Amino acid sequence: MLVMSSPSGAGKTTITRALLEKDVDLSMSISATTRPPRPGEVDGKDYFFIEKDKFEAMVENGEFLEHAKVFDNYYGTPKKPVDDALAAGKDVLFDVDWQGARDLRHAARDDQMSIFILPPSHDELERRLYNRAQDSEEVVKKRMAKAGSEMSHWGEYDYIVVNTEIDESVAQVEAILMAERLKRTRQTGLPEFVASMSGEDNG
Amino acid sequence: MLVMSSPSGAGKTTITRALLEKDVDLSMSISATTRPPRPGEVDGKDYFFIEKDKFEAMVENGEFLEHAKVFDNYYGTPKKPVDDALAAGKDVLFDVDWQGARDLRHAARDDQMSIFILPPSHDELERRLYNRAQDSEEVVKKRMAKAGSEMSHWGEYDYIVVNTEIDESVAQVEAILMAERLKRTRQTGLPEFVASMSGEDNG
Repeated sequence: MLVMSSPSGAGKTTITRALLEKDVDLSMSISATTRPPRPGEVDGKDYFFIEKDKFEAMVENGEFLEHAKVFDNYYGTPKKPVDDALAAGKDVLFDVDWQGARDLRHAARDDQMSIFILPPSHDELERRLYNRAQDSEEVVKKRMAKAGSEMSHWGEYDYIVVNTEIDESVAQVEAILMAERLKRTRQTGLPEFVASMSGEDNG
Repeated sequence: MLVMSSPSGAGKTTITRALLEKDVDLSMSISATTRPPRPGEVDGKDYFFIEKDKFEAMVENGEFLEHAKVFDNYYGTPKKPVDDALAAGKDVLFDVDWQGARDLRHAARDDQMSIFILPPSHDELERRLYNRAQDSEEVVKKRMAKAGSEMSHWGEYDYIVVNTEIDESVAQVEAILMAERLKRTRQTGLPEFVASMSGEDNG
C-alpha cells in the first residue's frame, strides 16, 4: 500500500497518472465521493460518484477503509477493490489527504509506506491553483488556506518529494516504489532461494 | 553510509563501479589490506596495500572503522577518508563482507543502510568463479564454500538485490540510493522550506 498526499496544486495527480501508465504492478485505489463530477470526470475512473444516502449506508456497513467530510462532501476509500488488487499481487496507490493517510495508517492492513508531495514554492503553488480555470477565485483562496494546513502534516510521511520538475518527481516516486519492493522484508521466497544455492554445494 | 555485501562472484564489483561512474554524490570507501596486489590492481584505488606491521599499528591506534583477518590477510576500513567524504556531504559506499557489515553496524556512525547482492543461481555463481582465470581451482572451491556461508547472512541486510542482469541490478541499487535520500528523516531543511510556503500566505 502506497499512500500519497499533497496539497492540491502540488502535482500529485499528474505524478499519479504517469506512474500508473508506467507500472503495471501498480493499481490505483479509486475513491468514492458525493460531490458532483467535474466536466470530463468519469465515474469509476476518477471517482465512484455516489449519492449521499448510499455513501452513508456504506459507512454504516463498514465498507470503507477510511472516509471523511471535506467542505460539504463525503470522500472515502472503498475496501473491496483494494482487497481484490492486493490479492492479485498488485501494489495499491492511495491518493488521500493527511486525514485519509492517518486513517489508513490506523487501519494498518499489510504494510504501507507514504509519500508527501510538496510544491517547489508558495508562488508556484498559487500560480498553479489560479491556472485551474474551473475553480472560482474563492475556491482558490480556500485551497491556498487548505494547502497550508495540509502541508503542516509533512512530518507524518515516510518520504518527501518536492515537485519542481514533473519527470524528475515521477522518477523519484518510481525509485521509492522500486526500493520498497527490494526491501528484504517485502521479498518472499528468499529463504528458499538462498537455500537452493548453498544446498547444492555437493552437486 | 551505504553498506554493500555479497559472496564473490555475485557481481558486486561491477555494480559498484557502474554506480560510482554515474553518481557524483557517492564516494567509495577504499579498504586497506595486507594481501599482495593482483595484476592490474592500483594502490589507493582498488585497495591501500600496506605491510602487516603498519596494519597492526593502525589497528592499535584505532584508525579503522572495522577490520578482519580473511584467509591469511588483514582487511580493514580506514576511518579518515570516510570522515572526510561524509564531511563533504557525500554518501559513502562500503564494499565489505558480512562481518565487516556487522562491525560497521556496531560502529553505528550516522545512519546507514545495507544491500546484499545475490547471484541468480548456484550454477551461475560457480560459472562466474571458474571464469576468473586468475584464481586457482582450489581458490574457487574455497570461495564457493565461503559464498555459502556469506549468503547465509542475507537476513541481516535492509535490501536484497538478485543480480540476474547487471543493468537492471545497477538501476535497482540506484533506486535504493535515490529513495533513501528522499526519506523525510534524511532531508534537512524541510521545516524551513514548508514554513516558507505557508508563512507567505498573507503576501
